[in-house]
Amino acid sequence: MPNSVLMERLHLGANELTGWRRSIYTVIFESDTPAGKAFDVGLIVLIVASVFVVMLESVASFRTQYGPWLFRAEWVFTILFTLEYLFRLVAVRHQMRYAKSFFGVVDLLAVIPTYLSVLIPGAQFFLAIRLLRILRVFRVLKLAHYVSEADVLLAALRASRRKILIFVFFVLTLVVVLGSLMYLVEGAGNGFTSIPRSVYWAIVTLTTVGYGDISPRTGLGQALASVVMITGFAIIAVPTGIVTSELNRLARSEESFGQACSHCNGGGHQRDAVYCRLCGESLESSRHA
Amino acid sequence: MPNSVLMERLHLGANELTGWRRSIYTVIFESDTPAGKAFDVGLIVLIVASVFVVMLESVASFRTQYGPWLFRAEWVFTILFTLEYLFRLVAVRHQMRYAKSFFGVVDLLAVIPTYLSVLIPGAQFFLAIRLLRILRVFRVLKLAHYVSEADVLLAALRASRRKILIFVFFVLTLVVVLGSLMYLVEGAGNGFTSIPRSVYWAIVTLTTVGYGDISPRTGLGQALASVVMITGFAIIAVPTGIVTSELNRLARSEESFGQACSHCNGGGHQRDAVYCRLCGESLESSRHA
Amino acid sequence: MPNSVLMERLHLGANELTGWRRSIYTVIFESDTPAGKAFDVGLIVLIVASVFVVMLESVASFRTQYGPWLFRAEWVFTILFTLEYLFRLVAVRHQMRYAKSFFGVVDLLAVIPTYLSVLIPGAQFFLAIRLLRILRVFRVLKLAHYVSEADVLLAALRASRRKILIFVFFVLTLVVVLGSLMYLVEGAGNGFTSIPRSVYWAIVTLTTVGYGDISPRTGLGQALASVVMITGFAIIAVPTGIVTSELNRLARSEESFGQACSHCNGGGHQRDAVYCRLCGESLESSRHA
Amino acid sequence: MPNSVLMERLHLGANELTGWRRSIYTVIFESDTPAGKAFDVGLIVLIVASVFVVMLESVASFRTQYGPWLFRAEWVFTILFTLEYLFRLVAVRHQMRYAKSFFGVVDLLAVIPTYLSVLIPGAQFFLAIRLLRILRVFRVLKLAHYVSEADVLLAALRASRRKILIFVFFVLTLVVVLGSLMYLVEGAGNGFTSIPRSVYWAIVTLTTVGYGDISPRTGLGQALASVVMITGFAIIAVPTGIVTSELNRLARSEESFGQACSHCNGGGHQRDAVYCRLCGESLESSRHA
Repeated sequence: MPNSVLMERLHLGANELTGWRRSIYTVIFESDTPAGKAFDVGLIVLIVASVFVVMLESVASFRTQYGPWLFRAEWVFTILFTLEYLFRLVAVRHQMRYAKSFFGVVDLLAVIPTYLSVLIPGAQFFLAIRLLRILRVFRVLKLAHYVSEADVLLAALRASRRKILIFVFFVLTLVVVLGSLMYLVEGAGNGFTSIPRSVYWAIVTLTTVGYGDISPRTGLGQALASVVMITGFAIIAVPTGIVTSELNRLARSEESFGQACSHCNGGGHQRDAVYCRLCGESLESSRHA
Repeated sequence: MPNSVLMERLHLGANELTGWRRSIYTVIFESDTPAGKAFDVGLIVLIVASVFVVMLESVASFRTQYGPWLFRAEWVFTILFTLEYLFRLVAVRHQMRYAKSFFGVVDLLAVIPTYLSVLIPGAQFFLAIRLLRILRVFRVLKLAHYVSEADVLLAALRASRRKILIFVFFVLTLVVVLGSLMYLVEGAGNGFTSIPRSVYWAIVTLTTVGYGDISPRTGLGQALASVVMITGFAIIAVPTGIVTSELNRLARSEESFGQACSHCNGGGHQRDAVYCRLCGESLESSRHA
Repeated sequence: MPNSVLMERLHLGANELTGWRRSIYTVIFESDTPAGKAFDVGLIVLIVASVFVVMLESVASFRTQYGPWLFRAEWVFTILFTLEYLFRLVAVRHQMRYAKSFFGVVDLLAVIPTYLSVLIPGAQFFLAIRLLRILRVFRVLKLAHYVSEADVLLAALRASRRKILIFVFFVLTLVVVLGSLMYLVEGAGNGFTSIPRSVYWAIVTLTTVGYGDISPRTGLGQALASVVMITGFAIIAVPTGIVTSELNRLARSEESFGQACSHCNGGGHQRDAVYCRLCGESLESSRHA
Repeated sequence: MPNSVLMERLHLGANELTGWRRSIYTVIFESDTPAGKAFDVGLIVLIVASVFVVMLESVASFRTQYGPWLFRAEWVFTILFTLEYLFRLVAVRHQMRYAKSFFGVVDLLAVIPTYLSVLIPGAQFFLAIRLLRILRVFRVLKLAHYVSEADVLLAALRASRRKILIFVFFVLTLVVVLGSLMYLVEGAGNGFTSIPRSVYWAIVTLTTVGYGDISPRTGLGQALASVVMITGFAIIAVPTGIVTSELNRLARSEESFGQACSHCNGGGHQRDAVYCRLCGESLESSRHA
């Protein structure tokens, strides 16, 4: 089972800490103690609440009616996240390593925009950055028992990365060719005003999204569109097949990782096997060897 | 093969019943006798018919034309379901256990709204509750030979629950980030009036639903939308891969559950195993026995 | 490998035929001789051409312009198909068995509507029946080497029939419950005028079709719609998982159907194995035993 | 592992080349040397840039504003691609074999349209041909380490070709039958003006694209459409299952190709095999050798 790289990155010299820094570390970075668990739950609630506030802030009717409340809530969240950031900085042994780690940057990005918005008005752009706070939930999930599950998924995706890349490139080629064909067939009159727009239509159709903002009107165009749709319907099988086959392989190799028998050299034993299934010798001896 | 939990919950002390209660129990709760089968078929017809009546009731043109007929039909269904509920209550040994079980509550919810609608007018809300009657069909299916099939599906879903949860959470993060990006790119003029609305658009697009009520107009917006679509087209592979791999694992383990050892009663041997993997005894003897 | 049931149904006593009926039988019902192959290709061309003529006939602009030509082409097709039907009837031994078989009925339906349209004017309904001619192509494909491939697919679908049925029923329950919830949330003003219409919307959304003819306008409605979409995106994994797992099982069992060794009773041999992979004894002896 | 046919086709007698032609060959056709790698990267940049220029040329607002610049860029690309084509022609031993190979034709098509557009004005048709340049990227990818990945995908698709063909044919039959049914049910008033148009609608719906340009209005039509949608949602499982099962089989056969027998050189042994399945000799000796 592959070790979580994220997990490793977090162990920033915890074993060498002592005293109160060690206590803070345990509460903030671990989730085995009751205090650690309570901290995690509280943090998730805070993060989700702050994301909701940011989203509501972008709704015009909400902003005009509850503007001051949203403003105050935002500052409360920012101050709490700032305190948390400082505590994290204090608790870890290698401050710079934490500050430059992925989650260190995310933690900082969660608080900076609010401070900057005081200096620079016109906060629309900051809204989006503040939404990155949602990434912080993964930090907590990571501590819970979801790491190994995510590891399996990531391992499968990583192993099939190249196949998926080729597939995506093939899809891009397909939509460029099909889109420019549609541009010739339908013409500017029916919404296919340029090749980039026709390629956009081809993507909308091939992925079976189908907005309907551009759609073919001529018979030939509809025939060609039908080919695109059936192609899209059929080739969705390819990424699915790739990921499934990879997950299968991982599951299979995990199931029969089985050690070989030291007596008859037979392999493929299940995990809880005690005796060789082929010659009946004890597997313990090979294990201890 | 996992035992159906639902099945267990139904055996509310049937073996200890005697006389006419036993007969009622057999007809209502079992489906092995001709009377039990006839009851099941009749019940399914009743349930489906009553669901159709409720649905038609919500169609304005039907209500004005056939209102009184629908009213009468509803009362006929309600009285029949009430009788059935009372019979069930009488037939089981532990009344409270049945009344508090999942299907006990569903059975009660199937009849209460009609009685309440006499007291409280304005029945629109009751319509929806009455539609929950459709859940009662599962009660009958459960008795037929569909239990083990559903069990396999549920087992696969249960085993992959965590992976799917992580996937859903990842998708939610993705749509929040992509939605707020679109909000910045397209702006309020093109329908992306707020971040929640942009996130809604991102969900509509990533899941390849594609209503087209909101769609990007600018070139940059369409380029970003294309990325969202191709991402959605590719990551649908993940839940599919998870469930398929789990179903495969279940099928494989079922295939090779093999014979049990006659010595230690241990099971789970592969097909070509010669010696018991737990006690080391030869499996031949059990085979020849 | 399962034998094609359709194939069997066609062998209507061919071996007992003699003389010219035998020759006709070989040409029409088989595809091993050059004449039989030529007949098959000609028939497919005829069928596809006649289907195109029927489709073009339904296009108003075509009908007004080329009406007489379409009319003549239709009669040519009908007369050729009638002759073919009569030859088939003559060639087979058991006329009634053929006439009542699936393809016998399809063959008859391919010609009757044209004759009836002389007696009964207003042929719109007959158009659709004439299109059933397309099913006749399967008759020819069946003779080619596509039978065993289709058999594998059908076997997988048949084996997973129950699981798929349960899934479809679950989806139906889901859309009834979600549709009626949407009816309460959105109300008649936004297009959700009745429960059946809301259920229709739920199906359009859950299957990720997304016409956009009805779409939620309120925030709560859009939130609920998002849940429906993500659910649909995730549960498409279930039928895919079922079919894939079944196809895997079939592929695996075909690979290692292997006979057991008569000496050591070991199984799981590959198809071309000559000696037992566990004890080294010849597998031939077991085969001849 | 199947050898890449494309790869083979490229080795146009390279080993027999000497001197400067050999050097050019190494730079252009191979990617192992620093110069070869630089050439590949440069070529990809050129191809992508030229594709972008062609696409922008089709956008009316761009053409009017930057017309002369696009014109000049196009001529720069064409001259560079022409030089490259000539170098390739010089470097290979068998000129005609290269010129007639797939990539030889693509390389030529990349430059011809620009020269022709001088002679024949009205270049809209040439735009589409010039976009075929995108295919040239595959030439470079082929040299990188993506060949074997693509080979596995292609092998899986080739092995499942027949099953997918049958599936596509089945889908076509389905949409013809369902489309003509819809034509009868909805009628011309609601957009279902002809059978071809109704079949187009059926394809749009079954593949879950769902433009919404044509959608059913009557209750019966919506009910039928619901059946089409759920069918489409369920049968997408079939192509996915086919491809996944094939990829699984390939992965499995790769895993257990096992060691070859030292006696008869036979391969394909399972992992736990003890004796050669073809000649019966012990595999142990080969293992210890």
